[in-house]
Amino acid sequence: MTLTQEEAFARIRLLRSPNVGPVTFRQLLRRFGSAVAALEALPDMAARGGRRMTVAHPDAIREEIAAVRAAGARYLFHDDTAYPALLREAPSAPPIVTYRGDVALLAEPAVAIVGARNASAAALKLALQFGEALADAGKLVVSGLARGIDGAAHEGALSTGATAAVIAGGIDVVYPPQHADLQERIANEGVLIAEQPPGTEPQARHFPSRNRIIAGLASGTLVVEAAPKSGSLITARLAGEAGREVMAIPGNPLDGRARGCNQLIRDGAVLVQTPDDVIELIEDFTGQPRSTFREERPAFTEFDLAEGAGEHPAEIESLLSSAPVPVDDIVRSSGESPGSVQLALLELELAGRLTRHAGGRVSLNT
Amino acid sequence: MTLTQEEAFARIRLLRSPNVGPVTFRQLLRRFGSAVAALEALPDMAARGGRRMTVAHPDAIREEIAAVRAAGARYLFHDDTAYPALLREAPSAPPIVTYRGDVALLAEPAVAIVGARNASAAALKLALQFGEALADAGKLVVSGLARGIDGAAHEGALSTGATAAVIAGGIDVVYPPQHADLQERIANEGVLIAEQPPGTEPQARHFPSRNRIIAGLASGTLVVEAAPKSGSLITARLAGEAGREVMAIPGNPLDGRARGCNQLIRDGAVLVQTPDDVIELIEDFTGQPRSTFREERPAFTEFDLAEGAGEHPAEIESLLSSAPVPVDDIVRSSGESPGSVQLALLELELAGRLTRHAGGRVSLNT
Repeated sequence: MTLTQEEAFARIRLLRSPNVGPVTFRQLLRRFGSAVAALEALPDMAARGGRRMTVAHPDAIREEIAAVRAAGARYLFHDDTAYPALLREAPSAPPIVTYRGDVALLAEPAVAIVGARNASAAALKLALQFGEALADAGKLVVSGLARGIDGAAHEGALSTGATAAVIAGGIDVVYPPQHADLQERIANEGVLIAEQPPGTEPQARHFPSRNRIIAGLASGTLVVEAAPKSGSLITARLAGEAGREVMAIPGNPLDGRARGCNQLIRDGAVLVQTPDDVIELIEDFTGQPRSTFREERPAFTEFDLAEGAGEHPAEIESLLSSAPVPVDDIVRSSGESPGSVQLALLELELAGRLTRHAGGRVSLNT
Repeated sequence: MTLTQEEAFARIRLLRSPNVGPVTFRQLLRRFGSAVAALEALPDMAARGGRRMTVAHPDAIREEIAAVRAAGARYLFHDDTAYPALLREAPSAPPIVTYRGDVALLAEPAVAIVGARNASAAALKLALQFGEALADAGKLVVSGLARGIDGAAHEGALSTGATAAVIAGGIDVVYPPQHADLQERIANEGVLIAEQPPGTEPQARHFPSRNRIIAGLASGTLVVEAAPKSGSLITARLAGEAGREVMAIPGNPLDGRARGCNQLIRDGAVLVQTPDDVIELIEDFTGQPRSTFREERPAFTEFDLAEGAGEHPAEIESLLSSAPVPVDDIVRSSGESPGSVQLALLELELAGRLTRHAGGRVSLNT
């Protein structure tokens, strides 16, 4: 579908407005039919939620668009044909990303390769080998451009085929500095993707968000070497939650750096020894992963917003606290229709008084 | 139960007679009620199978018993109270073994630790650590006294607790020579077990047979490091077939010696990193292993022998060839009762013309 320039502009402006995340964005678009209409409704909704809000200023959006152009980048909207189908299915898929390079690569079957920044020499060698062999077999190797495993996987893939790097900062921000050349090569020979607006320096909170895109793009995520509780394990968990294959390369338990991967395998990830193991798994992938690495999450039903205004935000607010609870529970306790509860929650969110958590849970900001 | 001296003697003589294996032994004992009666029937049965046979000479048995005594060893019969219950349940459990040391140890929950003879230093260290920690936690560590992993596991276990070694040769035969001291220590501080008669030098064919006893004694078998197609993997397979836990310590795929264990894990063995992982699995073991490492085998129904003589050995023989087929198939093709087919097969076996294979299959010797 082709957006009018006005609607494309409104979408960017809607997403850059305070308290609008991917879930809110999607709900608003469904409720109002267009970003233009949603933007108009936004201030009133926030007011009903109990606080004033100002939508993003058009000048800021004009500046952003100019910066994206200057960087040789383009926008990709969630309903564009080129937007990767697997990512679109993922929970809280980004409604808009910016990219440099060949967006058509995102239509290829993709494998994420992730792992530690301070990886062992053996693990770096494996990441390089796997990247090379997977790209050679026509798979798109996806990673996060970090030092260590990520970089080795990208390098390996570039030597024989295609790679996609998802970065935590803006499309025009070089990070990490050691990978400045690699980032430029990927933008020219592969595809470079950013969710944050141009000019954004990557911060700690951007990385898990970036990881969900890596996991969402790929049919499966391979962890090469990872410490317990590391970011790579978060990517693996997100892949599992999205119903994708989770794979790990094992290591000797005497080597502390193998613990994360070994634990993943104990928890149901597929043990992988060779690139062929990965290729077989990815080519057989039909949406029913062989990996059983999936954390149980409360079922999450997303309802469309009710028509009209949320009539009871104060009542819904009284059911919330700083402890996250499933929206489904709020609906049950309130006795209201799901659509009007969602609307009231959205109004609280736009007012900056509500936080959304994984698994369709919400909490009140205190 | 206490055997009369005459029956104990007859059992040893029956088992040492030509073409009598564990399955045959059990069938004969059930059919005739005692080894004394089975011995009397044996020559006629073999004759009906088409060839003469001579049962073991009493003098040879007297010599064997004297050798067992001289070695400070004793006999353990499959229906003795001290015979380990788990081993009794295992397929083709040995009807008689000889042992030195403390047979009461075999009543403890047991874990088999097996692996390569030419193991890496890291794997030897792990075997030692696991042996030590498991014995310290009150588990009986079972292994095969081989060089490498076996020896390290025994050594570790002896430092804190109990260990059982199952040897491929006779109870009075030292093998391997490098472990002469260890063998003697285990006989004094643990328990040493042999299936073959005293004086038997271990030969290649004895090792798989020894491995089934190791697997049968233990609630679970842990493979520490093993090459593909090695004896340790046979022990793991036998443990899986007996419905026990199969566990493996992973390793980096770049290290060829890790391939066997990694493949086991891919095939459903539980990945183990620490002795606690093993202890937890063994203490939770209720006969339903968490490991899914089990090869599919044709179902094997063991029937009691029919009364009287096998009436159609020639007819049953015509249904057999040098390719192993399931006994159940022979029963179906023959139109005879299962008991009389078993009897005819037994007669062919005693005549040295039939070989039994795993999974209840039989073939004709050509």
